[in-house]
Amino acid sequence: MNTFINNQIELFQEKNKNRGRLLVSCPDQPGIVAAISKFLFSHNANIIESSQYSTNPENGMFFIRIEFECPGLKDKAKEIEEQFTEIASQFDMEWKLTHVYQIKKAAIFVSKELHCLLELLWEWQSGDLMADIALVISNHEEARDVVEGLNIPFYYIPANKDIREQVEEKQLQLLKEYEIDVIVLARYMQILTPKFVAENPNKIINIHHSFLPAFIGARPYERAYGRGVKLIGATSHYVTNDLDEGPIIEQDISRVDHRDNVDSLKKIGRSVERSVLARAVKWHLEDRIIVHQNKTIVF
Amino acid sequence: MNTFINNQIELFQEKNKNRGRLLVSCPDQPGIVAAISKFLFSHNANIIESSQYSTNPENGMFFIRIEFECPGLKDKAKEIEEQFTEIASQFDMEWKLTHVYQIKKAAIFVSKELHCLLELLWEWQSGDLMADIALVISNHEEARDVVEGLNIPFYYIPANKDIREQVEEKQLQLLKEYEIDVIVLARYMQILTPKFVAENPNKIINIHHSFLPAFIGARPYERAYGRGVKLIGATSHYVTNDLDEGPIIEQDISRVDHRDNVDSLKKIGRSVERSVLARAVKWHLEDRIIVHQNKTIVF
Amino acid sequence: MNTFINNQIELFQEKNKNRGRLLVSCPDQPGIVAAISKFLFSHNANIIESSQYSTNPENGMFFIRIEFECPGLKDKAKEIEEQFTEIASQFDMEWKLTHVYQIKKAAIFVSKELHCLLELLWEWQSGDLMADIALVISNHEEARDVVEGLNIPFYYIPANKDIREQVEEKQLQLLKEYEIDVIVLARYMQILTPKFVAENPNKIINIHHSFLPAFIGARPYERAYGRGVKLIGATSHYVTNDLDEGPIIEQDISRVDHRDNVDSLKKIGRSVERSVLARAVKWHLEDRIIVHQNKTIVF
Amino acid sequence: MNTFINNQIELFQEKNKNRGRLLVSCPDQPGIVAAISKFLFSHNANIIESSQYSTNPENGMFFIRIEFECPGLKDKAKEIEEQFTEIASQFDMEWKLTHVYQIKKAAIFVSKELHCLLELLWEWQSGDLMADIALVISNHEEARDVVEGLNIPFYYIPANKDIREQVEEKQLQLLKEYEIDVIVLARYMQILTPKFVAENPNKIINIHHSFLPAFIGARPYERAYGRGVKLIGATSHYVTNDLDEGPIIEQDISRVDHRDNVDSLKKIGRSVERSVLARAVKWHLEDRIIVHQNKTIVF
Repeated sequence: MNTFINNQIELFQEKNKNRGRLLVSCPDQPGIVAAISKFLFSHNANIIESSQYSTNPENGMFFIRIEFECPGLKDKAKEIEEQFTEIASQFDMEWKLTHVYQIKKAAIFVSKELHCLLELLWEWQSGDLMADIALVISNHEEARDVVEGLNIPFYYIPANKDIREQVEEKQLQLLKEYEIDVIVLARYMQILTPKFVAENPNKIINIHHSFLPAFIGARPYERAYGRGVKLIGATSHYVTNDLDEGPIIEQDISRVDHRDNVDSLKKIGRSVERSVLARAVKWHLEDRIIVHQNKTIVF
Repeated sequence: MNTFINNQIELFQEKNKNRGRLLVSCPDQPGIVAAISKFLFSHNANIIESSQYSTNPENGMFFIRIEFECPGLKDKAKEIEEQFTEIASQFDMEWKLTHVYQIKKAAIFVSKELHCLLELLWEWQSGDLMADIALVISNHEEARDVVEGLNIPFYYIPANKDIREQVEEKQLQLLKEYEIDVIVLARYMQILTPKFVAENPNKIINIHHSFLPAFIGARPYERAYGRGVKLIGATSHYVTNDLDEGPIIEQDISRVDHRDNVDSLKKIGRSVERSVLARAVKWHLEDRIIVHQNKTIVF
Repeated sequence: MNTFINNQIELFQEKNKNRGRLLVSCPDQPGIVAAISKFLFSHNANIIESSQYSTNPENGMFFIRIEFECPGLKDKAKEIEEQFTEIASQFDMEWKLTHVYQIKKAAIFVSKELHCLLELLWEWQSGDLMADIALVISNHEEARDVVEGLNIPFYYIPANKDIREQVEEKQLQLLKEYEIDVIVLARYMQILTPKFVAENPNKIINIHHSFLPAFIGARPYERAYGRGVKLIGATSHYVTNDLDEGPIIEQDISRVDHRDNVDSLKKIGRSVERSVLARAVKWHLEDRIIVHQNKTIVF
Repeated sequence: MNTFINNQIELFQEKNKNRGRLLVSCPDQPGIVAAISKFLFSHNANIIESSQYSTNPENGMFFIRIEFECPGLKDKAKEIEEQFTEIASQFDMEWKLTHVYQIKKAAIFVSKELHCLLELLWEWQSGDLMADIALVISNHEEARDVVEGLNIPFYYIPANKDIREQVEEKQLQLLKEYEIDVIVLARYMQILTPKFVAENPNKIINIHHSFLPAFIGARPYERAYGRGVKLIGATSHYVTNDLDEGPIIEQDISRVDHRDNVDSLKKIGRSVERSVLARAVKWHLEDRIIVHQNKTIVF
């Protein structure tokens, strides 16, 4: 089956060999778009898609995401990056230039409940999630068969709050070894230490099984049932050191009613969780997200 | 315009002169449906619609809503009620028998923002909200013109937390005078005293401008903006003495994104608020709601 | 993995060994609910859930679905069925009494695109789709690995319109051999003959990749793209001999915009298709659907 | 009440006195964004929001919408337009430059059913629909009171298919007299002649009460009921000479079930119709829509 995936990746890379993406955040002022677009034009890059957003006409922030075709991008990439630093410093930009043919390397962390992992693997097999899923790490054995069946390395690392540091040391070691770009917590259910989070800023995507900020923390479906809500939801967010308080990437809900007990809420919720997480991961992989002041701009 | 409404009400009453509704809550046990349906059959009542729900096969609660046609209901109603008490006491029922031709009398409380009031008035004018809107009470003058333009009495009662008791005395007096069955807080924005709430159990319907339990209390849109949520919502609930903690009747949400500032959240939210409140009020008017342990069963 | 499934099935059967479901359609008249509920009570059956619907007070049709607990159902089932025929003939009922512990046997037909099959298999593995998936039939080999990996028999029967009858003969033979109760066309993409359909009335569930009646027939996503719609949808329906005209069980949609080309419509559509089909199949398995005059009542 | 509206309009105009919008469609090629943004920068215009879309990297079409702040726009507008023609001809652009302080003049056509008209009037009163509603034309008298109550001129022009040309002559005369920019058919229910349509290309917005292309033409709710659909919808589109075939601007749906008869479908549908039409009209007023080959790009 990996042959199939590899073929898809190769096709994708070939199709996107000249495709680049530029993400910029900076204080707003006239002339930014002119400077960027002139720069890209001077490198024969054609802007394919561009989205811009400014927080406020006066003294605001400027954000842009540009996707462009640039003949020979692979060879010119380094030169382009170097030359762009001049514009970047002129406008005081935070920026990132990515090359679409460089598929991002992802690690998935999972616990006992597999629905979010399965959704990601499935989208990946269908070619709808363009990542290199380099490894799966779990504190349980439930996912081993399906993961190894897809020729993805599976690491079983038992975890609990008493051995958190040793566990994370092993995990960080693996992330380094596999040169991981993005970590997806697909219902991992373990709290990460500030050290782990600090080493991976805006790189850890979590799914929380409630429409945050409702039901922060443990057992959200039980609490939703107790409150008698008519909608249950899920929230995907970047992980920060404030539990369930990181920048929200995506949320969605599903309607429930009085007949639904905690078990049915969980069943219904699974569908919401997996689609919300999958969308968030895809947007991250496509460089659609800029984080600013604990919020996301999703282009 | 009220002539039009009166015609609609008369037509509705004529069409429903034999239509009754029975709502029952009691401990579950075999034979309840048999007893009720035998009873109705013995009064020549034909069951048109029936919905039942039990919390749990063993030691659970039983809830049912039955809508029936009973020739000559108007004349037989009292007799039926009296005879039903026997079954009711046998099964330890809480119950209510309503006659659809007896249109419920509603009072609407409103403050400065009129969108929820306008939605209710509009649905009412279209014949989609079958109530007798007996009066509108407000602590501001903004609604007077539109309310009086529809020949509905409008009472301006200035309110603030220092004169809460005097204000509520006047309000309770009016509710009594107009024989009000249901009170709709259409963005009234004043907290009611425990005394007021206690006199109107499960009769006060509020709209809160967030998907509860997120953003309980004041300024929910400002806080939603601050948190960077991707969905905003509204919740309609019965009022209890715990602020925004009463039984939820209906909730809905609308998608928002990073471009929406507090003002756009409010604009988008208005649409959600008005449809959520209108649905909740309609379900109440149609006797579709049973409250049990701070939750609603909506049949 | 099948061990896991078998465990879940056994647990489910044990939990539901006394659970029955009664579905009734008949001309409406007073006394039906009384007769049924008295009958069930006389067999010590406790009604757990009941939903009723009548098309019209006068000269209408009456439909009811009752779920009940009846101690010793397994042994009494035959006797109950026999005795119910009396009531059934008195009220001219079409009816069905099912025993929840008798898990339905399903056959899934699939072609090259596997997303709907995978969704069903996955829900089944999670214990959310309580069926005995007895076999998978396909005119392609794509699904073999995943199906056989779950220890489900896979039959490869090449098909095209010239050999339709021979193909269906083999299929019908297999359906008989495995005693199949329900056939799910999970994007099978072959038209069935009137003979095949006639042998399986209201037993074949199809998923069509559009919100019917828009885009009946072939290539709906291409046509949706051509028309510039802002929503794409999927429809699950029972198969009749009028192409895509059978009774609709469930529909849903997803929002799209001008940036979505045919490929993205297909990707987005896959999510809708799989959830719509899964819901329809679950409702069928739970005996929630009554077909009347080419429409469904879904309780 | 018009005083209130006038205040809102004046505030809006003052706030947006320097705000412009540029809409461009042209064959795609490198350098377009660079040329436009350099041009705007040379006039001291700061780009506030910009959205771009290209149909295809090679030989495709390029579309952009730019919203900008330009100090002294009112005085410089003419000069800017003149100078832009050079760029426009260089890239073979279709383009439009609008000044936000120039509020668009709208005519609303309505028949007997007022819900869509009422929604528009209400959003307008709330300041959420920034247009000058210059007149309402109807072939019935139902809307007169509410329209004149808001000090909007109301014209009663009886219409039927036999006198279509005389009727439209009067209508066109009024549109000219009031210098109308956009015509909203808020359930007008009369077919327009090719002459009328030709004089107002991409300026007539209709609401059709189905999710097109399902149920084109008359009595869509009756047909939706007949088909047993589980979703009903509404579609707003620009009017062309092919009935219900014009470019779709917005669509939405609402869930229905077997209990809904034609009347309830209509009630439920009204909510969908009014929100869909209101969104479409707002997007048009905000110059968010580009029409290309019978489809819309909505930025």
